[in-house]
Amino acid sequence: MSTCASELAIMLSGAGNATGAADLLCGRLDYVSNGIIDTSNAVNSTYLLFSAYLVFAMQLGFAMLCAGSVRAKNTVNILLLNVLDACTGSLFYYLFGFAFAFGTPSNAFIGKQFFGLKKLPQTGFDYPFFLFHVPYWIVYPIVSHWFWSADGWANAGRNTSEWLLFKSGVIDFAGSGVVHMVGGVAGLWGALIEGPRRGRFEPNRVDIRGHDASLVVLGTFLLWFGWYGFNPGSFTVIDKKYGPSGSINGQWSAVGHTAVMTTLAGSVAGLTTLFAKYMKTGQWKAMDVCNGILGGFAAITSGCSVVDPWASVICGFVSALVLIGGNMLAEKVKFDDPLEATQLHAGCGAWGILFTALFAREKYVNEVYPGREGRPYGLFMGGGGRLLAAHVVVIIAIFGWVSLTMAPLFFVLNKFGLLRTPQEHENAGMDLTYHGGSAYQFIEPAAVGAAVGAPV
Amino acid sequence: MSTCASELAIMLSGAGNATGAADLLCGRLDYVSNGIIDTSNAVNSTYLLFSAYLVFAMQLGFAMLCAGSVRAKNTVNILLLNVLDACTGSLFYYLFGFAFAFGTPSNAFIGKQFFGLKKLPQTGFDYPFFLFHVPYWIVYPIVSHWFWSADGWANAGRNTSEWLLFKSGVIDFAGSGVVHMVGGVAGLWGALIEGPRRGRFEPNRVDIRGHDASLVVLGTFLLWFGWYGFNPGSFTVIDKKYGPSGSINGQWSAVGHTAVMTTLAGSVAGLTTLFAKYMKTGQWKAMDVCNGILGGFAAITSGCSVVDPWASVICGFVSALVLIGGNMLAEKVKFDDPLEATQLHAGCGAWGILFTALFAREKYVNEVYPGREGRPYGLFMGGGGRLLAAHVVVIIAIFGWVSLTMAPLFFVLNKFGLLRTPQEHENAGMDLTYHGGSAYQFIEPAAVGAAVGAPV
Amino acid sequence: MSTCASELAIMLSGAGNATGAADLLCGRLDYVSNGIIDTSNAVNSTYLLFSAYLVFAMQLGFAMLCAGSVRAKNTVNILLLNVLDACTGSLFYYLFGFAFAFGTPSNAFIGKQFFGLKKLPQTGFDYPFFLFHVPYWIVYPIVSHWFWSADGWANAGRNTSEWLLFKSGVIDFAGSGVVHMVGGVAGLWGALIEGPRRGRFEPNRVDIRGHDASLVVLGTFLLWFGWYGFNPGSFTVIDKKYGPSGSINGQWSAVGHTAVMTTLAGSVAGLTTLFAKYMKTGQWKAMDVCNGILGGFAAITSGCSVVDPWASVICGFVSALVLIGGNMLAEKVKFDDPLEATQLHAGCGAWGILFTALFAREKYVNEVYPGREGRPYGLFMGGGGRLLAAHVVVIIAIFGWVSLTMAPLFFVLNKFGLLRTPQEHENAGMDLTYHGGSAYQFIEPAAVGAAVGAPV
Repeated sequence: MSTCASELAIMLSGAGNATGAADLLCGRLDYVSNGIIDTSNAVNSTYLLFSAYLVFAMQLGFAMLCAGSVRAKNTVNILLLNVLDACTGSLFYYLFGFAFAFGTPSNAFIGKQFFGLKKLPQTGFDYPFFLFHVPYWIVYPIVSHWFWSADGWANAGRNTSEWLLFKSGVIDFAGSGVVHMVGGVAGLWGALIEGPRRGRFEPNRVDIRGHDASLVVLGTFLLWFGWYGFNPGSFTVIDKKYGPSGSINGQWSAVGHTAVMTTLAGSVAGLTTLFAKYMKTGQWKAMDVCNGILGGFAAITSGCSVVDPWASVICGFVSALVLIGGNMLAEKVKFDDPLEATQLHAGCGAWGILFTALFAREKYVNEVYPGREGRPYGLFMGGGGRLLAAHVVVIIAIFGWVSLTMAPLFFVLNKFGLLRTPQEHENAGMDLTYHGGSAYQFIEPAAVGAAVGAPV
Repeated sequence: MSTCASELAIMLSGAGNATGAADLLCGRLDYVSNGIIDTSNAVNSTYLLFSAYLVFAMQLGFAMLCAGSVRAKNTVNILLLNVLDACTGSLFYYLFGFAFAFGTPSNAFIGKQFFGLKKLPQTGFDYPFFLFHVPYWIVYPIVSHWFWSADGWANAGRNTSEWLLFKSGVIDFAGSGVVHMVGGVAGLWGALIEGPRRGRFEPNRVDIRGHDASLVVLGTFLLWFGWYGFNPGSFTVIDKKYGPSGSINGQWSAVGHTAVMTTLAGSVAGLTTLFAKYMKTGQWKAMDVCNGILGGFAAITSGCSVVDPWASVICGFVSALVLIGGNMLAEKVKFDDPLEATQLHAGCGAWGILFTALFAREKYVNEVYPGREGRPYGLFMGGGGRLLAAHVVVIIAIFGWVSLTMAPLFFVLNKFGLLRTPQEHENAGMDLTYHGGSAYQFIEPAAVGAAVGAPV
Repeated sequence: MSTCASELAIMLSGAGNATGAADLLCGRLDYVSNGIIDTSNAVNSTYLLFSAYLVFAMQLGFAMLCAGSVRAKNTVNILLLNVLDACTGSLFYYLFGFAFAFGTPSNAFIGKQFFGLKKLPQTGFDYPFFLFHVPYWIVYPIVSHWFWSADGWANAGRNTSEWLLFKSGVIDFAGSGVVHMVGGVAGLWGALIEGPRRGRFEPNRVDIRGHDASLVVLGTFLLWFGWYGFNPGSFTVIDKKYGPSGSINGQWSAVGHTAVMTTLAGSVAGLTTLFAKYMKTGQWKAMDVCNGILGGFAAITSGCSVVDPWASVICGFVSALVLIGGNMLAEKVKFDDPLEATQLHAGCGAWGILFTALFAREKYVNEVYPGREGRPYGLFMGGGGRLLAAHVVVIIAIFGWVSLTMAPLFFVLNKFGLLRTPQEHENAGMDLTYHGGSAYQFIEPAAVGAAVGAPV
C-alpha cells in the first residue's frame, strides 16, 4: 500500500470504505503521474533524436562545403575524408569516445565508464543522448568531459554541492570552445607544420579558389540547417519547467530562444562580411559571406542559450570582424588553410567564449544552470568578472591541451611524410594518384566504345 | 486553499480529516493537470520548431533551384542573393517584420507590437512561433497581418465575437496568397519593368536554359521536403483535440492530413505536366515537371487543411494547366522570367485561393476555424458563395496592394539603373563583373604554379 | 455516472456529500487521463510525421546518388525517373497501395480496405502512418502486407491468438526484405533481361564511371540522414512503455537504440569496404565506400531494433564482404548494373534477414514483439532455429514472388522494345534524344546572342 493510500485512508476514516476509496484514488493518481513521465520521456526523446539527426546533416554540409572549397582535382580526396570522418566517428565514439566524454562516476579530467555502450540506457544516458554527441569524436571527448560532464572540472553545471571554477564554472553551452576552438587549434598546427599549398605564395601570391560555388552554398545552408540541431539540441531535454508548473516558462521556450539567437548571430555576421569585403575589394564576395555566416554561428554557439537578441547581433557583428582580421593576418604571415578553419573555428570560437562572459544575462544563466544563488553572469550585464576569469582560463586550457596533443602528432606525421602529399601528386591532384580518377567526367572518354560521336 | 480543495472538504465532511484529504487530493490533481500542460508545451514546441527548421531548408532548396535554373555565368550572383535573403530576412523580421505581422493588440491593417522581440515570450507568441515565420520577411508581414493575425481584417479565425469579411473571412491556411501570390505579383512587376534577357526574344526566340539539371532537381526535392514544415507546420500547435478528450480526433491527425494533401497535389501536378508537355513537344521535360510540382504545392498551400484527398488531386491537376497556360501566355507576350515566378507563384497561388473557396469541406473548416456555427465553406461542397466572395476580394486586394507598393519601387530603381545590369555585364555574366570570378573552375588556371601538366 | 464515480460514492458513504465528492474526483481524474492520451497522440504524431519527412528525403538522396553514378549524358533521364517515382508513388499509394499493404480486416496475402484513403483516420491508421509508407509503392504493398500487416502470414507481430510461421513469424523490422530484397530482385531481372551497357564488356572490360562524385556523396549522406526516419521511424509510435509506467524503459529508448544500431552497421560497412578495396586495388575508392555504407544500412534494416551494438558491428562488417563478393561475381558473369542495385539491395538485404535470425536478442524481441511467452529469437543467442527457419522461408518467398511478377513483365517490355533504349540513343545519351538537351551547360551556346565573347 502506497504512502498516499495509507495517509488518505486515515483521513477518510468514517467513510463506508475508507481504505477502498484511498486505494482507488491514489492508484489512479499514480497511474496518471506515471503516464505523464512516460509521455515526457517520449517528447524528450523525439526532440533529442531529431536534433541528433540534424547534427548528422552537418556532416553532409561540411562535406559539400569542403568539396566546393578545394580544387576540382582534389575533390574525391576531401569527400572521402568527410565520409570516413562520419564512419570512424560512429565506431570510435561507440568504443571509447562516449566513455571518455560522459562516463560517470568519474574524475574531473576524463570519463571511464560506458565503453562499448555498456550500462546504457540509464537515467540521463539514453541512446538519443549518445547519438547526439557522436560527431564530436576525437580530441573532443576529453575536452567535452571538462565542460559538459557533471564531473568535469570546468563545468558551470556541476552538482550544486561541488566546487566551481572561480565560483562560476564555464558556460560553453553548445561548444564554441569544446568543438570549434578545439578543431581550429588542431587545424592551426596541422596547417603550420604542413605548410602552404604549392603556388599559393611562391613565386607570387595567388588566391587559389575553390571549384564549385554551388557546393559551397549548399554546404553552408546545410550547416545552418544542422546548427538548429546543434545549438537548440544541446539542452538535451525539452520538457522541463523553469517556474511553477503549468506556465509558459520552460525549456520548450528556451530551446526556441536558442534557435533564434543562433539565427541572428549568423545572419548579422554574413551581412557584416558582405559590406566589409565590399569596402575592401569593391566586389560582392559570396564565398566570404558564407564563411562569415559560419563564423557567426561558431561564436554564438557558446552563449546562445543565455544572451539577449541585441547581444546576438553584436556577437555576429564582431565575429565577422574577427574572421576578416584573422584572414588578413594569415595572408600577411603566409599561413595557408584552404578552408580558413583556424581563423573561423579557433578565432570566432574564442571570441564566442569571451562574448558569453561579457553578455550572459542573469535570468537566463539561472534558468539554464539552476541551483546556485547569486552565481556570476556577464560582465557588461552587471554580473562581475568571475565568469570572464573562468572563460579566459578555458581559452588558455583549450589552446594548451590541443597544442600539446596535436602539435607533436602532426610533427611526427610530417617527419614520416604522411602529412603532406608528394609534389607530383599535389600537381596532378590526389584524385588521380590516390583515388583512381577525377570526381567529374562531363565528357565521356573515348575508351568507352559507345562514346564515338557522343556529345557532352 | 484552492476552490477544488475547499469544495471537496465540505463534501467530505464527516471523514476523520476532511480538509487534509481534500488538500492532498486536489493538490495532486493540480500537479498532474499542470504536468500535462508542461508536456503539451514541450510537444507543441518540438513540433513547431522542427517545422520551422524544415521551412528554413526551403531557403536552401530555393537557392539550388535558382542556381540550376540560370546560366552558369550568373550562378554566384543568384546564390548570393539567396544567401542574403536568409540573412536579411532574419534581421529585419527581428527588428520589425514580426511586429508588423503579429503585433497585438493592434489594428486590422498592420501590427505595432513586438519590435525587436520585445515582450516575448508570451502565450501564443513564443520563439518557435517567431522562427517559423522568419522567412516571410518583406512585403509579407503586412499581408500576413491581414490573414493570419487575430486582428487581421481578412482572417477567418478572428475572435468569435468580431466581424468577418462576408461573414466568412478568408481561408489562406499556409499562404497561397500571403506568400505565393505576393511573391509572384512582385516578380511580375520586376520582370515587366526590367524587360526580358538579351537574346531571349531578339533577334529570334531562344529558350535560354539553366545550366545544371541536378541542382534544379536537388532544389525541387528540398522544397518538397521543406513544404512539410510549411503546410503542416502552419497549425503551429499539434496537441489540440477536436472532439471530446481521449479520442483520435485532433490536430495531431489534421497535421498529418495536411501533409498528405500537400503530397497529392504536388505529385499530380508533376504527372500532369509530364504528359501535357509531352503531348505538346514530344519530349519528356524533366525541368518542367519540377516546376509543375512546385506549382501544385503553391496552389494547395491555401486549402491543404480543409479539403479531401480527391479534391487535392483536382487542385494539382488544374494547377499544372494554369502553369502551362501561363507560360504559353508569357511566351506570346514576350514576358521573360527565368524562374517562371509570376506564372508559378501568382498564377498557381491565385488558383489555390479559388480552389479552397470551391472545395473546402464543412467538417474540416469547422475543426480548423472553430467557434462559428454555420460558417460558409466550399461552394461545390454546398457551403454557399460567401467564402468564394471573400476569396475573390483578397485576390484583388493582394494584387492591388503588392502592385501599389512594388511597381513604383521597381520603376524608381529602374530609372536609376539599379534594376538591370549594364549590357556588357549581362554579356560577360555578373559573376565575373561583380563577384570576382566564375562559380565553377573544373580546369585549374595556369596562374597557379602547380598547374603545370595538371590534368582536370 | 461513471463506474469510478458510482463505486467511489459508495466507498465514501457517510461523508457530507459522497456523490458530489465522487463526481468531482472521478471527473477530474478522467480529465487528466484523457489529457494524457491527447498529448500522447500529439507526441506520436510528431515523431511519426517527422520520420516520414526524413524518409521522403531519401527520395532526394537516391536521386542524387543515381545522378552522380550515371554518365553525364543520361543525367536528366535518371533525375526524371526519380522525380516521377516520388509523384507516382504518392498517387498510387493513395489509390490502392496503402489498401493492398495495410487494408484490414483482410486476408493473409493482400489487403482490401482503405482504397483512396477511405475510412481514415481510425485507430492505428492515421494520416502520418499513411505518409510514412508512401515511398514503398509498387511491388512492395503486397509483400509489406505479408510482413507488416496484422493480417500478414509472415508477420511476427500477428494478434497473440493467431498462428505464427514456425511459431515465430518473421522479424523484418524496417524492411531488409520488404524493401531492399524486393527492389534488388526486381533490379536483377531488369538488368539480366536488358543486358549490359554497350562498351561495358565488349570489346574490352571497361569500368564505366559515374560523372560526379560530389553528387554521389551528397546522395549517400542524404540517404544516411533519411535512414534515421526509415529505421527508428518504423516503430510508428514512440510513447509506449515496456515495463511499469514511469520508468526509463520504453519505446522512446528503443527508437534511439535503433538509430544507434543503424549508424554502427553503416559506419563499419564503409570502413570495411575502404580497407578491403585498398587491399584489392591499392587505391582508396571513395565511391565504393559510399556503396558499402548503404549496403550496411540495407542489412541492418531488418534487425536494427532487436540486436546489440557489437552484433551491429558484425552485421556491417559482413555486409561489406557480401557486397564486394557480389560485385566480383557480377564482373565475372558479365552482369552489369550501374548502381549495383542487385548486389547491394538483394545481396545485403538477404544477409540482413539471416543476420537477424542469428543475432536477435531475447529481451529486445519480447519488447518489440510482445505478448508471446518463450518466442524464438536469434540462433547464436540461444533462441533456437525456428526464427532462422522462418527467415529462410521468406527469403525464398520474396525471391519467388518478385521473380514471378517482375521477370515476365520485363520480358514483355523487352520484347516490345520498351526496356532498352535504341543503340543510337544509348550512344548519344538519352538526355539529348528524349529530354531535349544535356543536364549541364557550363559554356553558353553561341545561339544566345548575348554569348558573343562571353567567358565561361
